Amino acid sequence: MNRFFVQLEYDGSRYHGFQKQPKTSKTIQYNLDRALTKVANHKISTICCGRTDAGVHAFNQFVHFDTNSTRKIDSWVKGTNANLPDDIVVKNFFKVDTNYHARFDATSREYLYVIKNANTPPAIGFNNYLWIKKSLNIEKMNKAAKYLIGEKDFSAFRASNCYAKSPIKKINKITIKNVNNKIQIEFRSKSFLKNQVRSMVGCLKYLAENKWNIEKFEDVLKSKKRSKCAPPAPAHGLFLAK
Amino acid sequence: MNRFFVQLEYDGSRYHGFQKQPKTSKTIQYNLDRALTKVANHKISTICCGRTDAGVHAFNQFVHFDTNSTRKIDSWVKGTNANLPDDIVVKNFFKVDTNYHARFDATSREYLYVIKNANTPPAIGFNNYLWIKKSLNIEKMNKAAKYLIGEKDFSAFRASNCYAKSPIKKINKITIKNVNNKIQIEFRSKSFLKNQVRSMVGCLKYLAENKWNIEKFEDVLKSKKRSKCAPPAPAHGLFLAK
Repeated sequence: MNRFFVQLEYDGSRYHGFQKQPKTSKTIQYNLDRALTKVANHKISTICCGRTDAGVHAFNQFVHFDTNSTRKIDSWVKGTNANLPDDIVVKNFFKVDTNYHARFDATSREYLYVIKNANTPPAIGFNNYLWIKKSLNIEKMNKAAKYLIGEKDFSAFRASNCYAKSPIKKINKITIKNVNNKIQIEFRSKSFLKNQVRSMVGCLKYLAENKWNIEKFEDVLKSKKRSKCAPPAPAHGLFLAK
Repeated sequence: MNRFFVQLEYDGSRYHGFQKQPKTSKTIQYNLDRALTKVANHKISTICCGRTDAGVHAFNQFVHFDTNSTRKIDSWVKGTNANLPDDIVVKNFFKVDTNYHARFDATSREYLYVIKNANTPPAIGFNNYLWIKKSLNIEKMNKAAKYLIGEKDFSAFRASNCYAKSPIKKINKITIKNVNNKIQIEFRSKSFLKNQVRSMVGCLKYLAENKWNIEKFEDVLKSKKRSKCAPPAPAHGLFLAK
């Protein structure tokens, strides 16, 4: 028995998220498992680390699977890609010890949220950015982001259907930069609550649009109440980056 | 009567090129004219500068139209975008003298061709790059590109159905750079022959893959024969940039 980690990239626009669902074939995992099953010549079920919501993209997501089939790494890559649609690509396969587990051995996750801040929306990549017309105050966003760093109770930023045992998470890093009017917000943590990243971006957006001041932003975190949080930013600007 | 220049961006993936065609609504111009007609409240027919082939994209294309309707610039932009699909966006409108003409007053055009040079194809933006697995020799491409600069007879790089009076064009500039394994090739000229850019990229590709040496590349230009040219690079990596 061999265990492989698979590194994959996808554009989530056409899918209902990563995870398999009973009534639809429009998930990343359904397509991936089907392609791997063809190459392995026996039924493959991947185990994922960091599920993504409908419409969310990934530059680098890792999943693992077990197989008795022996193929060269290059044959796994080529064969799987030949059986995947254009918007899902496997980038590499890594043979690992069977003790390794994609979910539990992830030491850190990185998400990237991209906002096109311009007078008109993007046509090229329209499914890969949130468009905001109003000029955003990046300096204010950077100041506010500091309140989110460290170990905090993120109850206010958590989906009502989040099943994590504790609302306490430790954010290691947030960087915000503006590259050609594309505002890139990067978040790093060992793990996140459900909807946490999109909820944080929603609040940073309200702040940067001057709907909120820094005090109001701080109050959301302190309140631990979901009702105080801004609406989560839409999924199509979000990328699982690592 | 007012004449407006319209600046537009589009992802050409779903379309049979810019120009209106009798039997399909899947052209950029059909969608643009329909949207402008709704906003103007009378029939609008745009005149284009630099038509694009099926699948080619544009960051900045200019077309013009005449109208008696009076709208604020912002109303033209918002109203037109509200009537366009997500993959076509009007970025701005410029009121110009009725002597100006989008085709004849273009002083220079810039095309950008993007190659993703990596072991696996791109999933995000799969319709916006040509994928080449084999590692490309950029230095060799840069050397060869010098032969194309200046006023030359580009007969070898011209589509058989190109109706330009003369095969002589003057290329002002070619720049080739590698940004994160995306090879960006920029071409600047007052105008190009039909398929010229894609044919030049096809030859640069053969060279960079070491299928050709520099002498062979030079011979294509000198021969003035279409039969000597490499197959044109596919449309989906090409952007009309200016």
